[in-house]
Amino acid sequence: MKLDFTYENPTKIYFGRTAMDGLRSELPKYGKTVMLAYGKGAIKKIGIYDQVLDICKSLGKTVVELQGVMPNPTYKKVLEGCQLVKDNNVDLILAVGGGSVIDCAKAISVSSYCQGDAWQRYFTNFEPVDNKLVPLASILTMAGTGSEMNAGSVITNEDLKIKMGRVFNADVNPRFSILNPEYTFSVSKYQMLSGIFDMMSHLMEAYFAGDDDGTSSYIIEGLLRAIIDNTRVAVANKEDYEARSNLMWCSSLAMNPLVGLGKAQDWEVHMIEHQLGAYTDCAHGMGLAAISIPYYRYVSKFGLHKFARFAREVWHISEEGKTQEELAKAGIDALEHFIKKSGMVTRLRDLNATEEMLPLIAKSTVPMGGYKKMTSEEILEILKQAY
Amino acid sequence: MKLDFTYENPTKIYFGRTAMDGLRSELPKYGKTVMLAYGKGAIKKIGIYDQVLDICKSLGKTVVELQGVMPNPTYKKVLEGCQLVKDNNVDLILAVGGGSVIDCAKAISVSSYCQGDAWQRYFTNFEPVDNKLVPLASILTMAGTGSEMNAGSVITNEDLKIKMGRVFNADVNPRFSILNPEYTFSVSKYQMLSGIFDMMSHLMEAYFAGDDDGTSSYIIEGLLRAIIDNTRVAVANKEDYEARSNLMWCSSLAMNPLVGLGKAQDWEVHMIEHQLGAYTDCAHGMGLAAISIPYYRYVSKFGLHKFARFAREVWHISEEGKTQEELAKAGIDALEHFIKKSGMVTRLRDLNATEEMLPLIAKSTVPMGGYKKMTSEEILEILKQAY
Repeated sequence: MKLDFTYENPTKIYFGRTAMDGLRSELPKYGKTVMLAYGKGAIKKIGIYDQVLDICKSLGKTVVELQGVMPNPTYKKVLEGCQLVKDNNVDLILAVGGGSVIDCAKAISVSSYCQGDAWQRYFTNFEPVDNKLVPLASILTMAGTGSEMNAGSVITNEDLKIKMGRVFNADVNPRFSILNPEYTFSVSKYQMLSGIFDMMSHLMEAYFAGDDDGTSSYIIEGLLRAIIDNTRVAVANKEDYEARSNLMWCSSLAMNPLVGLGKAQDWEVHMIEHQLGAYTDCAHGMGLAAISIPYYRYVSKFGLHKFARFAREVWHISEEGKTQEELAKAGIDALEHFIKKSGMVTRLRDLNATEEMLPLIAKSTVPMGGYKKMTSEEILEILKQAY
Repeated sequence: MKLDFTYENPTKIYFGRTAMDGLRSELPKYGKTVMLAYGKGAIKKIGIYDQVLDICKSLGKTVVELQGVMPNPTYKKVLEGCQLVKDNNVDLILAVGGGSVIDCAKAISVSSYCQGDAWQRYFTNFEPVDNKLVPLASILTMAGTGSEMNAGSVITNEDLKIKMGRVFNADVNPRFSILNPEYTFSVSKYQMLSGIFDMMSHLMEAYFAGDDDGTSSYIIEGLLRAIIDNTRVAVANKEDYEARSNLMWCSSLAMNPLVGLGKAQDWEVHMIEHQLGAYTDCAHGMGLAAISIPYYRYVSKFGLHKFARFAREVWHISEEGKTQEELAKAGIDALEHFIKKSGMVTRLRDLNATEEMLPLIAKSTVPMGGYKKMTSEEILEILKQAY
């Protein structure tokens, strides 16, 4: 652990087929009024909506609803939620859905009682939150972002055409999260795979940086192997409970402060995808998959030791008779083969991108880089190769 | 994740050379009176005692002291602490030392305001704790037990000659723990190695059981590899900061509800060592090391697939040309070689045990067994082989 760190993760997890029982034991700890936040109504089709309302009713709760939280939640939607919170004196925000709904709930939690413009203060100036928070909790229906067990929130300001992400303090974490892997069965295969690459990318962003290859790198290798093995099963059978449950738990751990502790991190692939998403509104994980291969092929020469380790430890590639370069290349080849074989997208042209967009995306991307700080020219070259 | 689970770990960790700064930021959150609990005074030699008192004083705290907490903390010591808590209206118990001091602090936390006999209620009948808890925190000086980040407490009742362990709810966890790896430099090599095998054993107890080889097994493999690699460095140079810091962080994660989630577990090695310790007062980790090899050689035939996986994933042993049995055996051989090469103890005769004790230890051991429920006869046979 080369770097000093602090770590805190207070979210209580209820996991498994009986996870919803946790809602019954947790709700009595909060006040009377619950705000149910959800998306376009998929939770009604799979029966969770009725179940949650029944539990709330049986515990004497008053429920107000924030419907229609969109895949990239907007600040306008956040403000709609804040108004509901204040009008109804909401005691708990219960986000039911995927990462977008939970991200939106966090933004509502910090913004409802904010003095002044929350977008400016909390998502632009990154001021410490100094007002009352509204407690929040989640019922997860899609694995990928890890928002159910962290304090991160990504919000899009439509008027300003800016998407901003922020990791708040741990008191913004969901107080509890309900994770029933069966709830993820209804997600399409495309979205499942997008979520899977999202979690892999979270781990690789934390992995491929620095020379601080301590405990966190070993944990990441274990989680990557778990994801790879279970993806193979889930691709063959989307309703394999064990595979989906492992993927669900991996996603909560992958985007969790736990896995990158004490080490340098990168996050360039996410930064590029961020801008790709702004232009194409593509599925986040698919964008990450398409960018990762050319990006890693390019930066691997600046961090050979780690890419060689990646090949050995994650993909079990023998180093016998290979140079470090060959070993590193074999690891990235294995990743590419896995992406293709699983059915993830590898070409930006298949994600609504056009050649004209590439320079605009490159120019607007925040330069990071785990082993080498990227320039716009380098990012453009990577985008061209991904195209 | 075959089994449903709940997970919660609210301890805030301050880790690294600057970890003590966390004490300064945390103490103001608690009331005026701090009870400092510590052992025989090693913390005075390495300067932590003065540092902590200075910080407390500068923040206007009143400090009362519970000195002389012993390696296997007694219930009598717990009661002494409870009296101090009540006499002084203690607002925070600050445990400074290894797992014993922290375990003692937890017992004091639950027992101080207990109605009736806390030993009977909380350590014998395992009743839910229904009284006010005294918040506790820790400053760790020895890595191994993981008590700094869990709700476990092992207490010895000298009068009854019984050692009882219990895992309380997460509200008994230390509120925060200060982990500065440099504090562990002063521990003897023997105690360092004992702590290292303790953490390895925590991981293996959770690993070798059931056929539920999901995410938790992958995380355990990663942590075991981290411990093995860093032990090799620390054995060569006890003051290698990175190695000791990785070992310290691994120990917090190894005995943490996190690593065994959703899976069956064993804990037979700990049960046997428990009784070995009652007869010999040997170093806990060394007892575990001596018992583990014959125990695993015996039970491996009932859980071959997992021992084969252990060989492959933890020790990187090639399965080429090997039967499952041979692969499993090669993994246990590698563990034995590691134990010997590191300088850990492999013989009970080197831990103050006599041949006469073995049947008594076997008889009094709680029978568990990850892949096969043990009988007293089987345990005796294992003890003989370990002797």
